[in-house]
Amino acid sequence: MTAQTSAAESGVRGDDNGFTLRAPDGTSYRVDLTREVLSPANPLLAECCEGRRVVAFTGPTVDRLYGRQLRAYLDARFAPGTWSVRVLAGGEDRKRMETVEEICALAKSAGLDRGGVMLAVGGGVTCDLVGFAAAIYCRGVRYVKVNTTLVGQIDVGVGVKTGINALGTKNMLGAYHPPHASLNDPAFLRSLAPRDIRCGLGETAKMAIIKDARLFRTLEECPQVFQRPYATPASLTEDGLGRRGVEDYVLRTSMRLMMEELCPNLREHDLARLVDFGHTFGPVMETASDYRIAHGESVAIDMALSSELARVLGLLDARDCERIIALIDALGLPVFDPETCTPELMDRALKASWERRGRRLHLVVPDGIGSAVFVDDLDDIPGAALQEALDALAARAQDASAAAPLTAAC
Amino acid sequence: MTAQTSAAESGVRGDDNGFTLRAPDGTSYRVDLTREVLSPANPLLAECCEGRRVVAFTGPTVDRLYGRQLRAYLDARFAPGTWSVRVLAGGEDRKRMETVEEICALAKSAGLDRGGVMLAVGGGVTCDLVGFAAAIYCRGVRYVKVNTTLVGQIDVGVGVKTGINALGTKNMLGAYHPPHASLNDPAFLRSLAPRDIRCGLGETAKMAIIKDARLFRTLEECPQVFQRPYATPASLTEDGLGRRGVEDYVLRTSMRLMMEELCPNLREHDLARLVDFGHTFGPVMETASDYRIAHGESVAIDMALSSELARVLGLLDARDCERIIALIDALGLPVFDPETCTPELMDRALKASWERRGRRLHLVVPDGIGSAVFVDDLDDIPGAALQEALDALAARAQDASAAAPLTAAC
Ligand SMILES: NC(=O)c1ccc[n+]([C@@H]2O[C@H](COP(=O)([O-])OP(=O)(O)OC[C@H]3O[C@@H](n4cnc5c(N)ncnc54)[C@H](O)[C@@H]3O)[C@@H](O)[C@H]2O)c1
Ligand SMILES: NC(=O)c1ccc[n+]([C@@H]2O[C@H](COP(=O)([O-])OP(=O)(O)OC[C@H]3O[C@@H](n4cnc5c(N)ncnc54)[C@H](O)[C@@H]3O)[C@@H](O)[C@H]2O)c1
Repeated sequence: MTAQTSAAESGVRGDDNGFTLRAPDGTSYRVDLTREVLSPANPLLAECCEGRRVVAFTGPTVDRLYGRQLRAYLDARFAPGTWSVRVLAGGEDRKRMETVEEICALAKSAGLDRGGVMLAVGGGVTCDLVGFAAAIYCRGVRYVKVNTTLVGQIDVGVGVKTGINALGTKNMLGAYHPPHASLNDPAFLRSLAPRDIRCGLGETAKMAIIKDARLFRTLEECPQVFQRPYATPASLTEDGLGRRGVEDYVLRTSMRLMMEELCPNLREHDLARLVDFGHTFGPVMETASDYRIAHGESVAIDMALSSELARVLGLLDARDCERIIALIDALGLPVFDPETCTPELMDRALKASWERRGRRLHLVVPDGIGSAVFVDDLDDIPGAALQEALDALAARAQDASAAAPLTAAC
Repeated sequence: MTAQTSAAESGVRGDDNGFTLRAPDGTSYRVDLTREVLSPANPLLAECCEGRRVVAFTGPTVDRLYGRQLRAYLDARFAPGTWSVRVLAGGEDRKRMETVEEICALAKSAGLDRGGVMLAVGGGVTCDLVGFAAAIYCRGVRYVKVNTTLVGQIDVGVGVKTGINALGTKNMLGAYHPPHASLNDPAFLRSLAPRDIRCGLGETAKMAIIKDARLFRTLEECPQVFQRPYATPASLTEDGLGRRGVEDYVLRTSMRLMMEELCPNLREHDLARLVDFGHTFGPVMETASDYRIAHGESVAIDMALSSELARVLGLLDARDCERIIALIDALGLPVFDPETCTPELMDRALKASWERRGRRLHLVVPDGIGSAVFVDDLDDIPGAALQEALDALAARAQDASAAAPLTAAC
């Protein structure tokens, strides 16, 4: 139980350099939007560490691309002997307890005590692992993250969840461990693989579909945002929203929408969460495919399936459903996976969600563009409806691969 | 960061059935003093679970002594299929990550979701393990504890710390996870081994030495409390404090003193903690002895050493020092261990504490009976002082074993 501060104080406040979140339970942190975060001229990262001992963790790819810069930054801004960089093997399959223990052992051998800082520089995998280690090391040490993927900058990086996969379940064990600071530098996105950009766009599309018709239109107009330059699209010419460019608009809007959704319910006491759109069927698909399907891809397929379900159940009209699925497709994301999108597995996913969400379904489905509702009871989703939704997606996937056999989604 | 409620609201409130703690950060929980907690007539334990699915964990000894009662209680008070009992192998050396993972796997196979309850029925080892598992399972589930040892009832059970030993260090990894409820039934203490009673009395003596001269006198008068009956001692005849018996007075007073100390600093943001008296040299002794020395015994030796140090440093007069060491001895606890009480190891312990407490020593030493101060700088403890204090204890131990070779402390 934590004290309630008045609702007036809590919320998400944006400024030129990012967002400050103040939750009703008093938790508060900032997510910064900064440039050249690893340039020694930029004091931000050093300021977050306040002269404390710091151990930075990163993955092999980020180390290869930015490791030299990271070390140069720490060398320039920290006292000798007070910092070190450790490289963890990457990959979703490394998101397990063994790696958390490895992180703690590396921190201990680097002399980190409870006054120290664990710094994560990487995507969601690195952050989930290091964040969890930071939550349990000496019962919790300061945690700073530099988010280097799009998923990291708009999703992992703006919240407080950390964790690992265990017992055959995604994110089965973990902790709510608010970052002391979370830093986003859009320049990292330039080196990101197209597939990882697309996964991030899946999360952006999620927020657009359930909350923001304008962001939805912008994505329709610029489906390759972050991958190729765009002139200001029609959706952003009013109100001067596009003055800092499409990328900035998409990034800031996604961050803000996500933080606003998280803020009143940071520790998920309320299990009915709009941001769970795309996260009902997805986790089971990821696990069943042995992580062949990436997180963002599972979200995409889940959103398509949930939208078709909404249409079948009469909650979403066919035109809006078509727009949603067309957008997912235009973003280069899959809307179906024949191997895992079986009625049995999807039904199992529904039951697992129902279990996980306190024996209520809380399935998020769109009821328009930029708007969503919950389907709360398992009984509200008859097997026939699930089958009909899956059939519609399977047919569409078949048509697509017949029409363009060489552009399979992933 | 968590919101500050007004100091007026925070604190520890006692009533006939226990204590309610309200911390400045808004955390709040109750520690109940109840009777016949496992009698189906007592609704308390069931009420703490509010009809949720519950998995109870216990150790082999507690299972042998109370397992039948526990199952009968759950059977009487819970719906069929909503509860189960799992027995974990006991012992300090089982307090490790592997066991936490085992607990989580058992919980999952019992169908526990994030709406469920993990119930610990046992001493500090069981509670530290189950509490940590409860902190990370689904990012945190409800945690209820039934404390069956004296250390459990007055120390582990009244706080929010959970954890495991790792990387060669006691309680290296863990979490602050407030219990939903913590239940003390003094009847459990009757079956406790004398050594475990003595370990608990070590913690009681700790609170007496640093905070409460009257409790100190009561322990001097009744050093075998919880092991044999006593008439109301002189220290309790005034004020009617002894009206519910010595055991009740010692238990309630220890619980209250500990909770009052913990309350303003529940998550140990302030690293200068009076309750760390006895916990500076102790952890290293426990680890170095491979847990031959029990926790309470290490606390006892540490208190004796810290008191001798205070005397050598001129902070404690020789008579009070003698009274403290005589009390520890009278409680049947060791004041010295030749194998681990070496100047090298004790010096290492000082440095490790200094490291752990944010590069300040914060060594708690008594400066009278019922009163203590901090020694904050490593330099304030010259090697010669440490040596002199150790010599005094070694001499005393030698005298004692010469006088009574058959009553070695443990
Ligand atoms: N904690 C949360 O709230 C939360 C939210 C969403 C997702 N997640 C988790 O996050 C993970 C997915 O995160 P992700 O999509 O960032 O995956 P990721 O961390 O695996 O990163 C994807 C790939 O990009 C590489 N990479 C990272 N930054 C790069 C850069 N700037 N340039 C080039 N390559 C770079 C990585 O090495 C990796 O190969 C999943 O495990 C998911 O469960 C957590
Ligand atoms: N989390 C905290 O704040 C905190 C505080 C102090 C100590 N601790 C930890 O607690 C542990 C010590 O706890 P402990 O002293 O309770 O040890 P313990 O849990 O090992 O119990 C001692 C022994 O008593 C047995 N036992 C338990 N209840 C019994 C009963 N009613 N009758 C007969 N036997 C019984 C146990 O099986 C065990 O063999 C250490 O690991 C220490 O680090 C934690």
